[in-house]
Amino acid sequence: MLSKLFMFEKPLGMRDTLPELYETKTYLRTEIVNEMKRWGYQMVETPTVEYYDTIGAKSAILDQQLFKLMDKQGYSLVLRPDMTAPIARLVSSSLKQTAYPIRLGYHSNLFRAQQYDGGRPAEFEQVGAELIGDGSVSADAETIALLIESLKRTGLQQFKLAIGHVGFVDALLLEIVGNKERAEVLRRFLYEKNYVGFRSHVKGLQLSSIDKKRLFGLLKLRGGNELFEQALKLVESEQGKAALEELQELWTVLKEYGLDSFITMDLNLVLHMSYYTGTVFEVYSQELGVPLGSGGRYDELLQQFNRPAQAIGFGIRLDLLAEAVGQIAPTEYRTCVIFSRERRAEAIGQARQLREEGQIVVLQDLNGIANVDQMSEDYDDILYVIGKSKQGGQADE
Amino acid sequence: MLSKLFMFEKPLGMRDTLPELYETKTYLRTEIVNEMKRWGYQMVETPTVEYYDTIGAKSAILDQQLFKLMDKQGYSLVLRPDMTAPIARLVSSSLKQTAYPIRLGYHSNLFRAQQYDGGRPAEFEQVGAELIGDGSVSADAETIALLIESLKRTGLQQFKLAIGHVGFVDALLLEIVGNKERAEVLRRFLYEKNYVGFRSHVKGLQLSSIDKKRLFGLLKLRGGNELFEQALKLVESEQGKAALEELQELWTVLKEYGLDSFITMDLNLVLHMSYYTGTVFEVYSQELGVPLGSGGRYDELLQQFNRPAQAIGFGIRLDLLAEAVGQIAPTEYRTCVIFSRERRAEAIGQARQLREEGQIVVLQDLNGIANVDQMSEDYDDILYVIGKSKQGGQADE
Repeated sequence: MLSKLFMFEKPLGMRDTLPELYETKTYLRTEIVNEMKRWGYQMVETPTVEYYDTIGAKSAILDQQLFKLMDKQGYSLVLRPDMTAPIARLVSSSLKQTAYPIRLGYHSNLFRAQQYDGGRPAEFEQVGAELIGDGSVSADAETIALLIESLKRTGLQQFKLAIGHVGFVDALLLEIVGNKERAEVLRRFLYEKNYVGFRSHVKGLQLSSIDKKRLFGLLKLRGGNELFEQALKLVESEQGKAALEELQELWTVLKEYGLDSFITMDLNLVLHMSYYTGTVFEVYSQELGVPLGSGGRYDELLQQFNRPAQAIGFGIRLDLLAEAVGQIAPTEYRTCVIFSRERRAEAIGQARQLREEGQIVVLQDLNGIANVDQMSEDYDDILYVIGKSKQGGQADE
Repeated sequence: MLSKLFMFEKPLGMRDTLPELYETKTYLRTEIVNEMKRWGYQMVETPTVEYYDTIGAKSAILDQQLFKLMDKQGYSLVLRPDMTAPIARLVSSSLKQTAYPIRLGYHSNLFRAQQYDGGRPAEFEQVGAELIGDGSVSADAETIALLIESLKRTGLQQFKLAIGHVGFVDALLLEIVGNKERAEVLRRFLYEKNYVGFRSHVKGLQLSSIDKKRLFGLLKLRGGNELFEQALKLVESEQGKAALEELQELWTVLKEYGLDSFITMDLNLVLHMSYYTGTVFEVYSQELGVPLGSGGRYDELLQQFNRPAQAIGFGIRLDLLAEAVGQIAPTEYRTCVIFSRERRAEAIGQARQLREEGQIVVLQDLNGIANVDQMSEDYDDILYVIGKSKQGGQADE
């Protein structure tokens, strides 16, 4: 029997999508997908459920955020927490015969279990693209340009992409603090955007005041093209300099795309995905305090699926984009044809004709309505086809 | 570490959707959704995950077919096995303030766990509509007409709807065999479409030869309008006769819709959903051995969610429809612009222009390709923008 507790309830973080939001999401998704397709990205879907060993372990999502279940054979399964690993599996299996570079797009629901009701969704739709098998800066630029052009199509006003480079951050931290473990501690402060913690941790380190200044300097590396000069002064290693050169070339190409006005450099940007290896980026809109999209280069993931390739991709959170854009789908004009049984055939014909003209028409048997007055609130227009016949009955409104 | 066993594998019954099938599914879904919207159905989404107590127990899907999991609070969850119960929950909660009748549409992935690999999908997309709060025969007819018109829009050729009535079958069985338990045994044979079993079971029953003939007669009740007369001779109870009258009126209305050529009556049709209470139907296409859609009236489900209403709905299996229709989305012409870095800005401009003209254009850095020859196999047209400059380099192809 149905317990009162659960009758109307959804699991923590699960939400219904009502018609207005559905239409907004459909509009936004279609605009983005159409742009991706014009750029030659081909759309795929992967299963909602994957083996934990394939996907869960590869995901950068915390284990406790995974929805886990068991299959009939006793294997551990997960609801996919992100799409990068499923796409890597797909490229290594179903698309094994397809030559690199491969350009794929998707729109898929992702799942993140909630510990308590913090207002965040446990299921949300992400629209994204992956460019696999091309390690050039052109591929980085294409990914970022596609992200920007897609967002422009949706009508989103006022957004910026912050671009950084994991290779630069890693190189700089390592050359200053000397080993990976100590670098990792600082990296975590950056990932958490806890700059106060970063500063206070740096102050406590046994480093020269010059090195401490270099670390404080990292926090200031946000802005435009002029940053590269400052950054070059901070870093000494070849790896760090190479990362900066890549970023500088990326900036040049994005200028060739005419998109540099959407870009800021954020050279201390660290995204949580452990598999990012190069360029990383986040999208911010004026309306939201959290990034509505992000992405980056992950050159080491594919080799774990036995089909090595450099790769880069992005994902846009459709729920957050809808929040930023607001209601965008036009409210549609709705007509209701209310009929009595005697004139049903006539009403059917009338509804068909209006629908053929592209109108939205509800056809409603008078006997099926408890409250006729309510109908005039719910529809923009009501046509009555009631009474015994066209001649004898009430006239149409 | 990733085990070899799982590296490329998906859980039992889970499938990837490659671009060609994606496009076909998108085409079919869009056609159906647009038709539903013209009829005034409003689209909604519900969560993939629901409480077992809300949905799992209400579903007519066998318990062993449910994907079950636990949330962080220890409550039992399921991946939704059908959409009728989630829509009932939605109507009783998020849409509580909306007056009946309510017309809703959806396209959602459903989940049925597999015991072994029988080639059936464990996750599939269903597109459906529900008309809630209208118990008239007009509502039955609208639902069936919408289903037929939606399928016609998809380009599906040669399909038929078999229509029956659970009330008629139940009344006839009950009046002949005398109690619900014995009727249930016969009902199960019908549900399993095991007519041999039905006959042999009937032969063994302690019934008059006239009653046995009536039961055998039930199996013959398939065909056109002429059936009603035969059926009326078999049934004696008021409930049975009332069900037949409903069906006869339904036939008349479908004729008024001009859709009677798509209809056959199947008066021994029993669908497995235990909550069906009246009209039931299945869609068969020439191409498939299994129904690609089904539906019916369920007048008792909503009261279990504390918002009583008569209701009817249908669902179309998008995977099966795609199989029946075959590849329908046109193969699109794809151009690849291959460029050298020196002429990147020029190539970007060229790609942008072609995309603005509506073409699909991949922009590819020559340095990002391992095998240039492969490209000419993958694209319909290749434009080379390589060499040091427009003047000095190789000419465009």
